[in-house]
Amino acid sequence: MKKMNLKPMLKPESVAIIGASRDPDKVGHVILQNYINAGYPGRLYAVNVKSEEDILGVKTFKSVLDIKDKIDLAVISIPAQFVPAALEECGKAHVKTAIVVSGGFSEVGETELQEKLVEIAEKYGMPTLGPNCLGVMDPRSRIDTLFLPTYKLSRPAVGGVSFVCQSGAVGSTVLDLISGEGFGLSKFISYGNAAHVDEVDLLNYLMEDEETKVIIMYIEGIKRGHEFVEVARKITKKKPVIVLKAGRTSAGMSAAHSHTAALAGNYEAHEAVFRQFGFTIAEDLSELLYFAKILDSEKYPHGGRVAIITNGGGTGVLCADAIGSNPDLTLAELSDSVKRDLRKSMPPLVNIRNPLDLAGDAEEVRYGKALETVGNDENVDMLLVIILFQTPGADSRVAAKMVNMKDRLGKPLIVLSIGADYTRMHRIMMESAGLPVYDSPASAVKSLAELLKYARYKERK
Amino acid sequence: MKKMNLKPMLKPESVAIIGASRDPDKVGHVILQNYINAGYPGRLYAVNVKSEEDILGVKTFKSVLDIKDKIDLAVISIPAQFVPAALEECGKAHVKTAIVVSGGFSEVGETELQEKLVEIAEKYGMPTLGPNCLGVMDPRSRIDTLFLPTYKLSRPAVGGVSFVCQSGAVGSTVLDLISGEGFGLSKFISYGNAAHVDEVDLLNYLMEDEETKVIIMYIEGIKRGHEFVEVARKITKKKPVIVLKAGRTSAGMSAAHSHTAALAGNYEAHEAVFRQFGFTIAEDLSELLYFAKILDSEKYPHGGRVAIITNGGGTGVLCADAIGSNPDLTLAELSDSVKRDLRKSMPPLVNIRNPLDLAGDAEEVRYGKALETVGNDENVDMLLVIILFQTPGADSRVAAKMVNMKDRLGKPLIVLSIGADYTRMHRIMMESAGLPVYDSPASAVKSLAELLKYARYKERK
Repeated sequence: MKKMNLKPMLKPESVAIIGASRDPDKVGHVILQNYINAGYPGRLYAVNVKSEEDILGVKTFKSVLDIKDKIDLAVISIPAQFVPAALEECGKAHVKTAIVVSGGFSEVGETELQEKLVEIAEKYGMPTLGPNCLGVMDPRSRIDTLFLPTYKLSRPAVGGVSFVCQSGAVGSTVLDLISGEGFGLSKFISYGNAAHVDEVDLLNYLMEDEETKVIIMYIEGIKRGHEFVEVARKITKKKPVIVLKAGRTSAGMSAAHSHTAALAGNYEAHEAVFRQFGFTIAEDLSELLYFAKILDSEKYPHGGRVAIITNGGGTGVLCADAIGSNPDLTLAELSDSVKRDLRKSMPPLVNIRNPLDLAGDAEEVRYGKALETVGNDENVDMLLVIILFQTPGADSRVAAKMVNMKDRLGKPLIVLSIGADYTRMHRIMMESAGLPVYDSPASAVKSLAELLKYARYKERK
Repeated sequence: MKKMNLKPMLKPESVAIIGASRDPDKVGHVILQNYINAGYPGRLYAVNVKSEEDILGVKTFKSVLDIKDKIDLAVISIPAQFVPAALEECGKAHVKTAIVVSGGFSEVGETELQEKLVEIAEKYGMPTLGPNCLGVMDPRSRIDTLFLPTYKLSRPAVGGVSFVCQSGAVGSTVLDLISGEGFGLSKFISYGNAAHVDEVDLLNYLMEDEETKVIIMYIEGIKRGHEFVEVARKITKKKPVIVLKAGRTSAGMSAAHSHTAALAGNYEAHEAVFRQFGFTIAEDLSELLYFAKILDSEKYPHGGRVAIITNGGGTGVLCADAIGSNPDLTLAELSDSVKRDLRKSMPPLVNIRNPLDLAGDAEEVRYGKALETVGNDENVDMLLVIILFQTPGADSRVAAKMVNMKDRLGKPLIVLSIGADYTRMHRIMMESAGLPVYDSPASAVKSLAELLKYARYKERK
């Protein structure tokens, strides 16, 4: 399989924004402004056929051919009919990679126009992303081609999750959610119509990318089945891939075709491939995030026995139910010595069992002792700690305790905290410190099960 | 079936807080403070055996017997062993109803102590809620027995949803979520061990309560099966009831028993009863809220044909998939005249189909025209409008447009908006105005299906 070199696209030392504009309503303006705001440290150029002067203080040219510098990446945002000529100029100027943000190609029936782009990209050996996409974001190299303003779409912190997304809309919402939750991003790549660079190329690149620990994907169609299987077979042995595939139903398939001109294909066939090669399958947008955060923690369980520690009885019951309904998980049977230790350290009203209900007045000391004791039980593979911040004892000290203890535990630990503002504040605080936090019993328990499934797949030779 | 008069508990003209305390760490202090903060307009008294002076400026007595006033409600928060004597005094003082907040009864094996409470309550004909509960909250009558401070647990606005909850923990988190989302509460009743007042009594009361439009319930065990069936048969013809039943699995059942001493019983049997009598069944905590907000809008569909209007193609595809996978729903086939009208009013790049993708630059005018036209299509029963606020065109004017148009539409309308802070602000704004807003394709579509199911049950004679 021919591999594309996507490094100049994701780690460019020089960028030209073609279609840069002085008009704040133009996409080319927002993109240029975002590069400036993100503090892009490389060499930045603007291209505008009509421009006589610099735009936003950035050196501006009438054509990319006029730039006397080697360009790693050209970001093209001009009306569709002018894109082929601009791309041709990029090729002639030895630009290494290109991103076509503009829409107006296959997705509206303009397949010939799109084919022209592919011809040019091939002729010059210039990997070209899009068209009809948001482009890329990499907080480490401070590149940001997204034309969505930061007050509407906040940008995530640096982290280990890379997100490959065929849809700009889905991409932008998930990106916004990632930043809202406080966990970090490695790369965001919206690839739209996938005319040239497609999911196979992106997975090949991210498989070898050391900054990427987990990959999440939203895909509408897979064009190169054989090549996809080839990379799928290898990638999940190296790192987890979570996939949300649109077009599960005929209603969705037809909608996908009109969206990115994707041929969604038979979902069952796709799902069989995903399962065979250890992909983690998301059934809803929210699951992309739920599964990403637990897999990003890179701590794998040896079995499915879960211990629950809680300061709210009912929430513990609901989690026990969710575990009881999951074929891969069981409620751990605490060992006798652990029970004896707990009996000594817990107040008399605490019932020594799993779920362990610490009661509403549990504070950092009680939580700490419980987690330390239960966490060392050899009958326990994974820990689910419920912290309801509405209760009198729960506060930032409990949250900090969990964060501090997480690295000392040799086992996966997740937190469930449900509530509004006061809770949300603590959720973000724990999540930012690398502790996966959930907001419902179902999502927490399902994430534990998916972590176990991936751990088992990875162990298999 | 003997009906209890719970009005003095929920609409008390006079309240005595037994166990009121000057110590801010005591439950009795927080409860008294909450009554004061909530601006309770009735006559408020404090009772403390040791107190010589008034507490928090409230007239304080050594015993409820010393109060020369008729007391509608006594809220008791003192150590368990002293509760029977205090309750006996309430009976002698002709107190009409009581809430025992204190724990330390059946849930820790103290069944005799709990039976004493029931005897006293029965002897005096004094409906008694609890023990081991959070008590009640009614924003209309400004009563708030919750001992959880408002900075941790924000209180919801006045609305139509009443929440009957056996678990204090579950209750407090859901209450916090309700207030965080911006939709309103009629009554919150946490009934703990259900020693005297139980779910049957509460449903009987709420069935006739004009302020209650929708009931959500979290229950661990049902003690009086026959009586429950009797009220279940009647109540769902009047108003929807959404139920989350713990103890679906043996793991959950055993956990529930140790929590509120509930005998969870066979889940399948319970579920059969719920289904037979048109209860809406929640499978996770989050579904209590998802279903409550759509049922609270009291607008019922005549069929399952859904139209999707979106400013993000991929999110439309995911919703189409969710509809395609739901046996009760279909993607509506827009009528020819509606398609013609849309072709005239929409920009050329908009593909006239369902989902209707208005594109990323859609603003209030385009949204308004689309909703007006599609909303009047006789082939459409329900509307799902996706507003991704990350896009250039979406802002508060689009949100306001949806709110304004909702009442003019004779059909159910819900919104799906996914994202962080900027999105959340708009979600709350729309939700507060009575428009149900969702945060994932799966939850939005499942809620439409549950609305349809209830509408069909209600229509049946």
